[in-house]
Order: sequence, then C-alpha cells, then structure tokens
Amino acid sequence: MARNILYAQSGGVTSVINASACGVIETARRHPEQIGKVFAAREGILGVLREDLYDLSLEDDAQIAALRHTPGGAFGSCRRDLGNPDTHPEQFARLIEVFRAHDIGAFFYNGGGGSMLTAAKVARFARLSGLDLTVIGIPKTIDNDLPHTDTSPGFGSVAKYIATSVREVSLDLAAMSGTSTKVFILEVMGRHAGWLAAAAGLAFEGEDSPLLLLLAEIQFDKTGFEAALKHKVDRHGWCIVVAAEGLMCGGQFCTQAQTSEIFGHEQLGGLAPLIAHHARALGYKTHWAVSDYFQRSARHIASRVDVEQAYACGAAAVSYALEGRTDLMVAIRRTSDEPYLWTLEGVPLDEVADVELPVPPEFIRADGYGITEAARRYMRPLIQGEDIPPFRHGLPAFAELRLARAERRLPHWTGKT
Amino acid sequence: MARNILYAQSGGVTSVINASACGVIETARRHPEQIGKVFAAREGILGVLREDLYDLSLEDDAQIAALRHTPGGAFGSCRRDLGNPDTHPEQFARLIEVFRAHDIGAFFYNGGGGSMLTAAKVARFARLSGLDLTVIGIPKTIDNDLPHTDTSPGFGSVAKYIATSVREVSLDLAAMSGTSTKVFILEVMGRHAGWLAAAAGLAFEGEDSPLLLLLAEIQFDKTGFEAALKHKVDRHGWCIVVAAEGLMCGGQFCTQAQTSEIFGHEQLGGLAPLIAHHARALGYKTHWAVSDYFQRSARHIASRVDVEQAYACGAAAVSYALEGRTDLMVAIRRTSDEPYLWTLEGVPLDEVADVELPVPPEFIRADGYGITEAARRYMRPLIQGEDIPPFRHGLPAFAELRLARAERRLPHWTGKT
Repeated sequence: MARNILYAQSGGVTSVINASACGVIETARRHPEQIGKVFAAREGILGVLREDLYDLSLEDDAQIAALRHTPGGAFGSCRRDLGNPDTHPEQFARLIEVFRAHDIGAFFYNGGGGSMLTAAKVARFARLSGLDLTVIGIPKTIDNDLPHTDTSPGFGSVAKYIATSVREVSLDLAAMSGTSTKVFILEVMGRHAGWLAAAAGLAFEGEDSPLLLLLAEIQFDKTGFEAALKHKVDRHGWCIVVAAEGLMCGGQFCTQAQTSEIFGHEQLGGLAPLIAHHARALGYKTHWAVSDYFQRSARHIASRVDVEQAYACGAAAVSYALEGRTDLMVAIRRTSDEPYLWTLEGVPLDEVADVELPVPPEFIRADGYGITEAARRYMRPLIQGEDIPPFRHGLPAFAELRLARAERRLPHWTGKT
Repeated sequence: MARNILYAQSGGVTSVINASACGVIETARRHPEQIGKVFAAREGILGVLREDLYDLSLEDDAQIAALRHTPGGAFGSCRRDLGNPDTHPEQFARLIEVFRAHDIGAFFYNGGGGSMLTAAKVARFARLSGLDLTVIGIPKTIDNDLPHTDTSPGFGSVAKYIATSVREVSLDLAAMSGTSTKVFILEVMGRHAGWLAAAAGLAFEGEDSPLLLLLAEIQFDKTGFEAALKHKVDRHGWCIVVAAEGLMCGGQFCTQAQTSEIFGHEQLGGLAPLIAHHARALGYKTHWAVSDYFQRSARHIASRVDVEQAYACGAAAVSYALEGRTDLMVAIRRTSDEPYLWTLEGVPLDEVADVELPVPPEFIRADGYGITEAARRYMRPLIQGEDIPPFRHGLPAFAELRLARAERRLPHWTGKT
C-alpha cells in the first residue's frame, strides 16, 4: 500500500504559504497509486511531536484549491528549534515514532532557514534510526534571506504590498504637504535583512525621488539622515522614509539604543515614532505607519509571480519525493530577468540550513538611502501580476477547511514542547 | 460666452476624492455650451486666495478618466479655516476678486463639514458682493461624520480596507497564536468618531468573534478592557483589538492621559503601543500596526460602491449648477438596505456646515466593544464591489496630469494664508 505523506508549516506565515500547501496537496492527490493519505501537522514540528495531525483526505477539492488564495497558515505554524539529536535525542526519537505510527514516507517542511535546519536534522536522524523517510524543504520567508534560491515565496507579495502602498501614500502626501504633513515614515518588517525596506524603492523610478530607505544593513547615522531628509524635502516638498525594524544604531537595534540615549527612559513604540522624532526635530510635520502583520497577510494584493512560485515549490517538492530524491530544498533558479524566466531545482538542505543573506552591497545606493538599478532589475519581476482572491459580500473569501484530526496511535507526548 | 467653473479639494484626502473630481470635470466637458473652462484651485481655498489655479482644459480625456482610480488629491488640499467675513473681510474680498478675474460662475468645494462651512460663507459673501456665484459642496470624509447624507464618499473604501485587512490578519494570528502572538492591535484613524474602528466589525459575522473594538465614542476602561480581552483569548486563543486614535480616557485622549499616568513621562508612540502595553501586562505576546495614511490612500482595495458614489456626487454637483441650484451639498439618500439603493439630493450647506456625527448608540454593542446588527446592516452595503485600478509593471498606474497653471490676472496675494 502507498505510504502517507506529512506536510507542516513553520516560522512566520505569509500570504502565499498556503499556496505551497495547495501545491503539495493537489499534486499528491494526482498520485493515489504512489501516495496514500496527506497529513498536515498542527503548528509545524510541534504537531509532529504531539502527534497532532490533520487528516486532509476529508477535505473537498474546492477548499484545497481555495488554499491558493488564502493567507495565514492553514494548519498553524510555530517557531521552535528542536535542538540537536545528541542533546535532545528523546525529541527526535519521538518524531520518528510518529512518522512510523502514521506510515509517513515523506515529510515536507515549509519554512525559512531555521526550518531547513530542522528538516536536515530530521532527515539525518531518520536515517540513523533506520526509517525510510524522504525529507524535502519548501522555501518560505518574507525576509528573502534564503541562499541558493532566486527568491523565497512570500517576499514578492510583501514587496508588492509595500511598493503599492508607498506609491499610493505618495499621492496623499503630495496633496497635503503644502500646508501640512511633509514627512511620512513607514516601518516595515526585517530584523536582520532590509529586503522589505528595499522593496519600497520600486515605488518610484530613478534615484531622484522623494524617498529615503533605512535598511537593516546600514548603520543609522542621525546627522547623515537629517541632511538627506532636509535635501529631499527642500527638493520635493515632502519625503517618505521607509525603515526596516532591524535598523542598527551603534551595534544594537535603534529601538533599544535611542530609547535610552534620547529620552532617558524606555519607549514603548517601535522604530517609526523614533524616526518621526528626528524628522520633527527638523521642523517637519510627520505621520507614521507600522505595517506589521498586514504586510505579510495582505493576500488581496499578492504578486501573481509569487503565488505561482509558492504553488510550484509545493508541487515540485512532491514530484521530487516521487522521483526518490531527498534531503533537498526546492529552489528557484532565474534564467532571465526580462522576461522573467525561472525553473526549479533541488539544493541540499545542508547548504541552506540556517543561513541568512542580507541585501548585497551592489543593491544598495552609494549614499545608503536607496537601491541601485541592479536591485530594481532583481526585484521588479517578483512583484509582477495580480492574483486577486474571490470576494464575497465585499470581503475576500478564503478556504474553510474541516481540519479533522487524524486518530492518535501513540501515548501523549509528555516531553518539552 | 459660457462662464467658467472652479473646483477645489479640502481637508484630508481620500482614495476616492479624485473620483469626485472626475465626475465634476467629465460632466462639465459634456456641456460646452453652458460651461467654459474648468479650473482647479491648488491646495483648496488657499489656491483661490493665491490665485493659484490649474487650467484643466489642457488635460487629456484619458488622464481625466484616470482620476477615477487615482488616490490622493490631484490638485492638492489644505485644512484652512478662513475665519468669518466680518473678522476677515479682506480674505473674502480677495476670493471674490479671483472669482471675478476668472469669470467663475460656479464654485465646487469638495470636503467635509468644515469645508461645507467655508463654502456656505463664500456663497453668502458672494451674494453680499453682488457676484452671481453658484456654490455647491461635494461631500468627502473618511470620518463618515457628515449629517443629512447616508455616507460620505471616502468612508466605504477605508471601511473595506480595514475589514479586509483585519480578516486577512486574523488568519495570520490564528496560525501563530498557539506558540506566539496572541493579541494584535490595530490603530485606525478617527479622532472624534469611531466609524473606522466600527468598520473592523465587518470582518467577522456575529458577536462571538475574536475581535474587540475601542471606539472614540466609549470612554476607555482599563479594567473592563482587560477582562474582555482575557475572555476573548480564553475563548478563541487570540484576539484582534481595533482602536480609534481618538479613544478617550477620563475626558482626554488616551495617548495624552495614559502617557503621564502610566509611564511618568511622555511617550512618542500612538495609541496602539499603549493598548499593547495593557495586553502584555496580562502576559500576552502582542503585535501592533498603525494604518495611518495607508487606510485612506489604499485605492487598490477601494469599494466600488464608494467610487460610484464619489463620482456621482461630483457629477451631480455640476448638474445642480446647470439647473440653477446653489448653496447646497450633494447628499446620498438610501432608499433600500438590500439591495442597496440610493439617490442623490441637495441639502442646504447651512445644515451640514461644521456638524460632526458620532457612531450612534444603537450601532454600538451593549458592552461597548463591538457593533450591532443594525450597524452591519448600515455599513455592509458601503463596502460592496471591487474597483481594482489598472496595474502596469506590477504597480497601480495612476493619472498623470499636466497641471498647467492658469495665467494670473491679479496682483500677488500678500495677506495671510
């Protein structure tokens, strides 16, 4: 009898991770002779530890198809490091037990660099345990920091959301700046890499635009920033500043450093109000916004390219497993910028595990406050095309799964989760 | 020869105020025998004072048509109170001079309650000055606080943006809450009225949803809020809190009151971090977002009903003028909830000038943290339909006007602006 497969979502979710799930499940359903049931773990690897699995055989095709346009993580996610097999052997042993109990022949882990490390460890430990287990990683991270892949599914849609929103808000600011707000600050995600702030650069063509980027890769320099901001406002009458939450001030996050230095006490807020404080010190009326989860769940403005890649990565993962390949992450290889052409390939999990790539120096403008033409050439294809979800009664309509639990076959997990 | 008309935008701009401009200009262009040139004042009434006018006869039909899907204020806006004709006669006299110099027969002012007051004063002063001037107000405000109209163009689109975003983010939170963030706080605009926070209530059906609203109409009660939040998280595992920026704590804005009371010093941030502070005190991991200008410029997720009403109000304003009616604001009258049917009518400017309507008590749930079925019945029609702008190279493409200045015929204005 065909063995079952197990899919799980890991790390911060995105507006297209469920499109990858859709790719996995739909592809598996087309191979009933080789694949038995599709299970999904609830809350990533934790669900495996807890033997908390959804039996997806009970889901309608239409609802599985709807996953393609549903943001969030349909099965729940977690950020959890399992440690190492030698320090936490009981956890890895439990995973193997659960795989065996449900006759799992292939495990698909959908996440970022940390999740790929987990997948690699699981693959190794399964082999040591004599379990025949295929392990394939499916890339996902809005941070776009995975190596050996042209991009990570999730990034393109956030980039499109940010560039669209910045372009829209620029018209608002242009209308108000003569008599009111002159500086608008947007704080975007990106604790270690400034890709999302860089994506705002797509909102305008050329360098002479009313936009300053504060990337996580560049130390914040108050004097330089104030001069750059003054220059932009003098020239355009207004300016938009897009700051990565992980902006660094003298070796620590600005939100930590400046809070004590400037205010002498802790500030509750994030980075945006701090940057606004600097702009106000120059005499400018400011407004600020923080996108937070909105940017990574805004499925209504997803990039079609991103959705297609997310789906294709999920589908390819199952194809690889069917071909007997294992210990790989599906990666996107770009073969042409314009038109944007790409193919998929497998890269060893070990080569992508726990690596974080920053925005490369050649993508950052010499003054540090913008992106180069090379960066545009790289990012532009990733935001192409729209993929509007169906709307019902004025609001997007998303998948509604039954999420029936698979029957438990093991004692409850009493170890640490 | 046919006299000219002048259009101006006032107050905070919206994602559909340019649709009203489009309605004005396209309707005027269909009546060349009765209407000469269409001028637009730069930055609202200030542009009239300064004789800073755009001559729209030089704009292509296609670009005028594109105004319908262009957010922001194409001609610039301002928030400026002209004072009264008896205290500031020189300002009103200047307006009349400018109207005469450019043979303006009709003035269309597109704004909220304050702008309608300005329009009413202009109409009265013109009459006193012996100038034959038609004055028509075109409603616009995301705050939805204008009287005598079913809604204000601008509100429906923000409501759709907020309800859509909250629905999307709810899937993100549901996926993460088991191991991470349990409370997400969104700060929306609304200094005096909680309409935008109320709109978030549309994201879920029924009252038993993981959502708490903090409306500007209801005094914030820390103890009650904490109990309500704990109840929601206990029941659903997570909760979204949507707070109006104008939330009141003991007679003043919470952002002022709590800052000193809780922290003993000034806080930079807005309301969202303060609410997050309360949630964290209960032990919940939180995330927070501030939509700010995004909510009112997010044309990509505008409500089709709102766009149609904005356009129709602009078109009707010109029709009223052609019929010889004056001193009116175009108002929307609802004739049916479902299907949503509406017509336009003129209401005297004096009756809408400077009135701000809050969310009525019958729309607010007994516990104060949600909306009633009556509120849903009222708001639901306003977010119906999508009106996606054209996209070019992955980003929305907006109108690109020439904005040629009309020749000046008067000395520079040296008075106060």
